[in-house]
Amino acid sequence: MAEKPLILVTNDDGITAPGLRALIKVMNTIGDVVVVAPDSPQSGMGHAITINDTIYLRKESIDNGPQTEYSTSGTPSDCVKLAKHEILDRIPDLCVSGINHGSNAAINVIYSGTMSAAIEAGIEGIPAIGFSLCDYNWEADFEPFENYIKTIAENVLKNGLPKGIVLNVNFPKVENTGIKGVKICRQAKSYWNESFDRRQNPQGKDYYWLTGKFVNLDSGNDTDQWALEHNYISVVPIQFDFTAHHCIELLNSWKLNA
Amino acid sequence: MAEKPLILVTNDDGITAPGLRALIKVMNTIGDVVVVAPDSPQSGMGHAITINDTIYLRKESIDNGPQTEYSTSGTPSDCVKLAKHEILDRIPDLCVSGINHGSNAAINVIYSGTMSAAIEAGIEGIPAIGFSLCDYNWEADFEPFENYIKTIAENVLKNGLPKGIVLNVNFPKVENTGIKGVKICRQAKSYWNESFDRRQNPQGKDYYWLTGKFVNLDSGNDTDQWALEHNYISVVPIQFDFTAHHCIELLNSWKLNA
Repeated sequence: MAEKPLILVTNDDGITAPGLRALIKVMNTIGDVVVVAPDSPQSGMGHAITINDTIYLRKESIDNGPQTEYSTSGTPSDCVKLAKHEILDRIPDLCVSGINHGSNAAINVIYSGTMSAAIEAGIEGIPAIGFSLCDYNWEADFEPFENYIKTIAENVLKNGLPKGIVLNVNFPKVENTGIKGVKICRQAKSYWNESFDRRQNPQGKDYYWLTGKFVNLDSGNDTDQWALEHNYISVVPIQFDFTAHHCIELLNSWKLNA
Repeated sequence: MAEKPLILVTNDDGITAPGLRALIKVMNTIGDVVVVAPDSPQSGMGHAITINDTIYLRKESIDNGPQTEYSTSGTPSDCVKLAKHEILDRIPDLCVSGINHGSNAAINVIYSGTMSAAIEAGIEGIPAIGFSLCDYNWEADFEPFENYIKTIAENVLKNGLPKGIVLNVNFPKVENTGIKGVKICRQAKSYWNESFDRRQNPQGKDYYWLTGKFVNLDSGNDTDQWALEHNYISVVPIQFDFTAHHCIELLNSWKLNA
């Protein structure tokens, strides 16, 4: 590549999140970096977009790095749309989202703002990767994963990604020397077994907090959840064509014309 | 079935939306209906869940129907979780979401609160269907589709759905006599070509409205978009295992271990 690649960086934990700052640091070693990230945490936003409200955009200067930065009042998906249509003067060569503070493996991918930004980029034709660390701690150490992030990003820049595919990369919570390497995986079949924590507000009205326990239904050793539990970095290729092609024949056998 | 099936009804347009009321009316002819719906419109919420905020729940009485109703301050996915864990004393036999005011065909499925509720139910093991009408009009006429809704719901109750599958049903904007019937489809390859409408607030600060134009990249006649444009009702089986299994071999050929 003659000129340096243009890299769009975003996340869902907000523009000051340590995971985002770590990702910017690595991307600055590869290309020209533009950051467009939410001005506040957006965890659990799924693939939300802002259609019934206004969106604000502000130029930011968070550290002394060479990157250009903007914060927005929008969702992670909004960030990608704004970057493409209002900020960048060409299509970026790569979009990276994260590093999320917390796992986006298994069924978590569906609730993930981090992954929704990567998927939005994929829909818009930009090669995209979401990165997450299985550690909710705001002080988590991202340094052990920097080389892997660089290698994965460089591979995507060099090889491209098949149409309609983005990568969901998760890092295990493990010391540097404990990382066993990278494993290409499928999404583990799993769900969250929720319970609601019911409380009363000072006015005596009931309200709820959503809490839950992750349940892995999958005993396969080719899943992202298995990989992470065995100290591998999981890479799952994911698609945004949700069609269950194998069910079309079955449904055609139903009598649906009333 | 000895006792009447238990049917959970939800949506993303809010508990007073005419599309929800139409769906309740049909479901009351099939089973015992419990409604848990957002207290305000949640369009474009994707698969958002409320993890950083409290959730309120209120018993409602909107009309004189036999159904039981609750409104919540949560998202469509929250509604399903609340219903299962806090409201219902057994797993419902069916969850229906909608009828959405506006299309959830093609790539719209990914931004859809209506479909996220159906997918959430699917994840929790409840057979689920999302219904949408390709008409944003709040006064749209749902009556021509009532028989189809009943037939599709009864088929799902009778046959069940394969594990990990939910149905995305869209109705064309067409007069009663114009409906050509039901077509099982795949999700059309498509995207939204956004533009942002930049304005200034009274304080002189720029803000944006997200607007866009739907672009269908798919010339197949087996897609939901094709079906709807030709006055068919589209039914797409969708899955929440996002793994692109066909890409795993390709990625295994990359050198990702730094």
